[in-house]
This record gives sequence, C-alpha cells and structure tokens, in this order.
Amino acid sequence: MNRLSSKRLTVYYFHCILWFLFLSFATGANARSTDPLPSWNNGPAKSAIVQFVKDVTKEGGPDFVPPAERIATFDNDGTLWCEQPMYVQEVFALDRVKGQAPDHPEWKSAEPFKSVLGNDMKGVMASGEKGLAEMLMATHAGMSVEEFNQISKYWLSQSKHPRFDRLYTELVYQPMLELLAFLRANDFKTYIVSGGGIEFMRPWTEKVYGVPPEQVIGSSIKMKYELVDGKPVLMRLPEIDFIDDKDGKPVGIQKFIGRRPIAAFGNSDGDYQMLQWTTANNGPHFGLLVHHTDAEREYAYDRDSAVGRLDKALDEAPKKGWTVVDMKKDWKHVFAFEKP
Amino acid sequence: MNRLSSKRLTVYYFHCILWFLFLSFATGANARSTDPLPSWNNGPAKSAIVQFVKDVTKEGGPDFVPPAERIATFDNDGTLWCEQPMYVQEVFALDRVKGQAPDHPEWKSAEPFKSVLGNDMKGVMASGEKGLAEMLMATHAGMSVEEFNQISKYWLSQSKHPRFDRLYTELVYQPMLELLAFLRANDFKTYIVSGGGIEFMRPWTEKVYGVPPEQVIGSSIKMKYELVDGKPVLMRLPEIDFIDDKDGKPVGIQKFIGRRPIAAFGNSDGDYQMLQWTTANNGPHFGLLVHHTDAEREYAYDRDSAVGRLDKALDEAPKKGWTVVDMKKDWKHVFAFEKP
Repeated sequence: MNRLSSKRLTVYYFHCILWFLFLSFATGANARSTDPLPSWNNGPAKSAIVQFVKDVTKEGGPDFVPPAERIATFDNDGTLWCEQPMYVQEVFALDRVKGQAPDHPEWKSAEPFKSVLGNDMKGVMASGEKGLAEMLMATHAGMSVEEFNQISKYWLSQSKHPRFDRLYTELVYQPMLELLAFLRANDFKTYIVSGGGIEFMRPWTEKVYGVPPEQVIGSSIKMKYELVDGKPVLMRLPEIDFIDDKDGKPVGIQKFIGRRPIAAFGNSDGDYQMLQWTTANNGPHFGLLVHHTDAEREYAYDRDSAVGRLDKALDEAPKKGWTVVDMKKDWKHVFAFEKP
Repeated sequence: MNRLSSKRLTVYYFHCILWFLFLSFATGANARSTDPLPSWNNGPAKSAIVQFVKDVTKEGGPDFVPPAERIATFDNDGTLWCEQPMYVQEVFALDRVKGQAPDHPEWKSAEPFKSVLGNDMKGVMASGEKGLAEMLMATHAGMSVEEFNQISKYWLSQSKHPRFDRLYTELVYQPMLELLAFLRANDFKTYIVSGGGIEFMRPWTEKVYGVPPEQVIGSSIKMKYELVDGKPVLMRLPEIDFIDDKDGKPVGIQKFIGRRPIAAFGNSDGDYQMLQWTTANNGPHFGLLVHHTDAEREYAYDRDSAVGRLDKALDEAPKKGWTVVDMKKDWKHVFAFEKP
C-alpha cells in the first residue's frame, strides 16, 4: 500500500465514522441504555410500567397504540405530590381566611371562619360540607382568574410544609416525575385529573411536572366574562361549576379530552372510577395506585385516612389487574429534593 | 495532479455533497419556498396572516412568542365549514326527530315536533328557545357518548347539503384548511371553539381539520358516569352543561385551555368576545373575521342573517385592527372539493 492510498483510506474511514455518529445522533439511536426510572427499585411495579410502555409502542405488535391515542391521566394530591397532613389547597384556603380577616369583621362570629381564626380545626370540620363550601367561595371567588393565579402562585412560593419545611412544590414525588417524563418520551400525552381546583394547579404544573395548563383537569367554579374599565376580564363566581372527583373524573376526562385514557394513575378511592373507566377499555390499558406505606420517609395511610382514603380501590386492584406501588419498597427516593 | 489525488478529490467532493444533502434534509432547511396558502389571493388578508406568523416565530424578534404559547382558536360554523342555509347540527336534529318519530306517537300533537314532522320550519322557529331546547334534548340525550358519536358520525357520512349535493364535511373551506396547517407548521396549537355541540364535532375534526378531540371546545350537555350491565358508560343527560357562544367563548377558552390565545378566527357576532379577549392581550395578537361576500360560490350574508349574523363585530373590526376576509376577493377557491 503506497502512502497516498493509505491517506485515502484514512479519509474514507474518517468519513465513515462521522456518518455513523451523525446517523446515530439524527435517528436518536443512542447506544447507551440508561434507566428511564432510576428512582424506582426493580420489582413488579417498575417491570409492569416498563412492559406496558414497551408493548404499546412496539410498531406492528399486537398491543401497539398510535401516539395520538396514548393518553395518560394522573391524579395530583397523593399521586404526584404530598397530600398529608392536609390537602395543600385546604391549607391555602385557611391561610387566605386569616389574610382576609381584617376586611371581614363578621367572620369573628360566623362559622367556619370563627374556628379557622381560632385555629380550631375540629370546629372547621364540624361546619360540614356547607361550611367548607362557604370558605372555598370566600377565598377562591370574587377576583379575576389572573388575580387568583397570582395569589395562589405567590402563596405557593412562600408557604412551607409543617413537617418537611419545604415548599409544597418541592414535595413532588421524584419517581412520578420520572414516570411522567418516561411516558412523554414515548409519545404519551400526560394529563392531570385532580379533585383539586383547576386554576390552583395551572400556574405551576408546567414548570414542576412538565404538564401545560391545557392538560390540567380539575374542579372549578363558574366564570363570567365582563368588561372592567373597558378591559375584558374573567371573573371567578362563588358558584361550583364542576367537581372533578370520584365519578366526576371519567366525566371530566370525556369533557376535556374526548377520548378514553389508556393509562391512569391514582392513590385513593377518589381515583377508583378513573381507573375503572380507563381499564374497562378493550384495547391495551394500565391502572396504577400509589400505596402510601412509608411513615418514615413520607406517610403511611390507607383505609382509615380522612385525607386520601384508599379502601375500595385497594380491594379491587388485584381483581382488575391494577399495579399497586408499595412506596416503601418500590421507591428508591420519595421526594424530588432527595434526588442525589 | 496525479491520478490518485484526483480520485481522492472526487471522494472528497462526493462526501461533501452527501453531507450537504443530509444536513439539508435533517434540519428541514428545504430550499424550495412554496406558498403555504395557495388558495388565498394576494391581498391585505393574506399578507396580514403571513406577517403575523413571521413576527411571532422570529426568534430574538420583538414579537417572538414561545411555541407553547402559540394558541390559535377557530370558530367552526361559517368559519371552517358552511353554515347556510341552516346550521348542520340543526339539520341533524330535525332528521333525528323524523327518525325517532315512530317511537314517539305523542310528537304528532306536541310542538316543536309536530311542526318538524310537517316540515313547517316557521312552526319550529315559533316554538322559541324552549321548543328548540326540548328538541335538542330529545335528539341529543338519553344515550351514551359512544352511541351518540356513532349516530352523528353515521348521519354525517350520509347526509348531503341541499344546494351543493355534497357531504357537509366536504363543505369545509380550503383556505381555512391551509391556514390551520400553516399555523401548525409554525408550532401553533389549533383549537376549535364553537357554539356547536362538542361531541357532534369530535368524531370527525381530526380527519377533516387535523384538530384532535382534545382540542375541540363546544357547547355541551351534562354527562353521568354509570355502570350498565357491569360495564361503565358515560350517559348523556337532557340538561345543558355549558353554552360555548358569545361571552361563553372566552369562558370556554379559559376552562379548557387555561391561557389566552394569541390568534382567533371567527365569522359572526357569536365570535365577538373571543376576538375581543384574544386581541386585548398585551403581547402580539391577531383577530380575523371571515366575511361571507360570495353568493355565487357560497353565500353572501352579514347584518340581517338569522344564521351567522355579522353586525357588531364587523363595525368593530377596523377599530380593533381585526383582519376582515372578503371571501369573494380573498379566496381563490372556497370549498375543499374545489381544490384543483
């Protein structure tokens, strides 16, 4: 081999290598096989998730689902972030009552406000659904959507969890963040379907979960379009519009998405109908419940809990083929802030 | 230059050309500059659309809008498909009454059904809002969502427009299809925001407009989740849930999307508030009205029309900077089936 042909070969090999690298990059055929769920311990829950995603994305396979139909719905409280010892939005409402109290002298003698101001949670609960609804309306209505979003966003940027001394938006579950990202990387459209207020969630779900406002479904109060000083605003009215909980979840899903999910993720009996609806689908489907079994790192609760009660759904899970996550066993890390 | 170095140069140039082609392909830098709106005649309407899209997509430009915020909302009746001489969904309701009549002997003597069965449209209209609502409930409720979707989809696959003798889904406006595609190609998310029934549209909007069910907003009746023979279904109830028209449109937009559009497209006073809301946005925004001026190829109507009345919005358009499409002048083709 003379010197020139050797050089020619070098050029040739060099180009071959460049081509290979470029094609690898362009087609996304990354040779490294990294674990998409590093905060999940190996076990039946992780395996079931990975297998399901593999099945529905395998083109030509018997369980293939076209990307447009890969809808996954997630409950929020207790499924994506911590709901103990009280729903975050309830803490927000209580704080709002205290903040607004100077403008409402009548609250000193009217329940449930009197109990809220006296830090008497038993008294608050004793006011029943009617009292709680009254508190909700007093703290969530009477301003524009924009104003409410600013109020709740500011509150979330300041308020900390009593036990963990962290912002509530830091108390999101790292394994679930990875699951959301894993599904999206496999062309799933991920939705939040929560009993919580839709506008309470929307200002931060994109940043925290990667879920944009238009993929958030929740409970709502009515709105009215009106002109204030010639400027159009959407005013929040003190009237329930929709309760996105229990049998409201499949209704909310149909209303907003217009098709049935193929995967649903929850943690309480409030998610029972969402999982039932999703897994009654004739095609491939997946249902998962997060079971809070970890009193040390988070909380342990199920059948007797006032918040996030998990009873009927836990009984039904084995019959329906739903995956149950044992938080203590299945999660290497719990919260996003624990990520190494 | 000896023979070998000449060969080496050939190899070199060959690789350069391959690289160029590959990079062009991979980055989508297609050199051909084809007209994205071929069914639009050159003129102020087309220029305004193209300029707006250019402005909001120019990275680093003063009017740049991040892709996630590029929300565009389209009315349906009269904006995307023909609404004359009667809203398509009204024709559907009338046909449904006739089809269901054998099961409802009482309709022979009860309005508005009696008039419908006697083809007396004046009588139908005379029954007023109450009569029309009654007809809507009798024809649109009492079945599951799935059953209703099958019924309406079948009807649309069979029923033809009285003048054009075409399926209604063929009477969609070719220039608007191009506009939808042009916006999507520029990372807009395109929504339908219609006064029509949400479930009447969803079964076909993806195929006809490229708009998936989760991007369709419309009027709705209530639903109930229940088990029928152990199988979960969503039943349609004879009760109005939401009217997505006039000042209901900004409300529907906030409810479903949770952010303000930057572009809105309509054709009647029913779209006035949607355009007002969209173009009151401080950032870049675009409002457009389709003015039906073409009696020969389609219909000519505005201020005095019972269907798709365009009066206040037409007066306001110049003050608000809304683009008004003169169908006769601005559109080279009207319907999708006319496309050469």
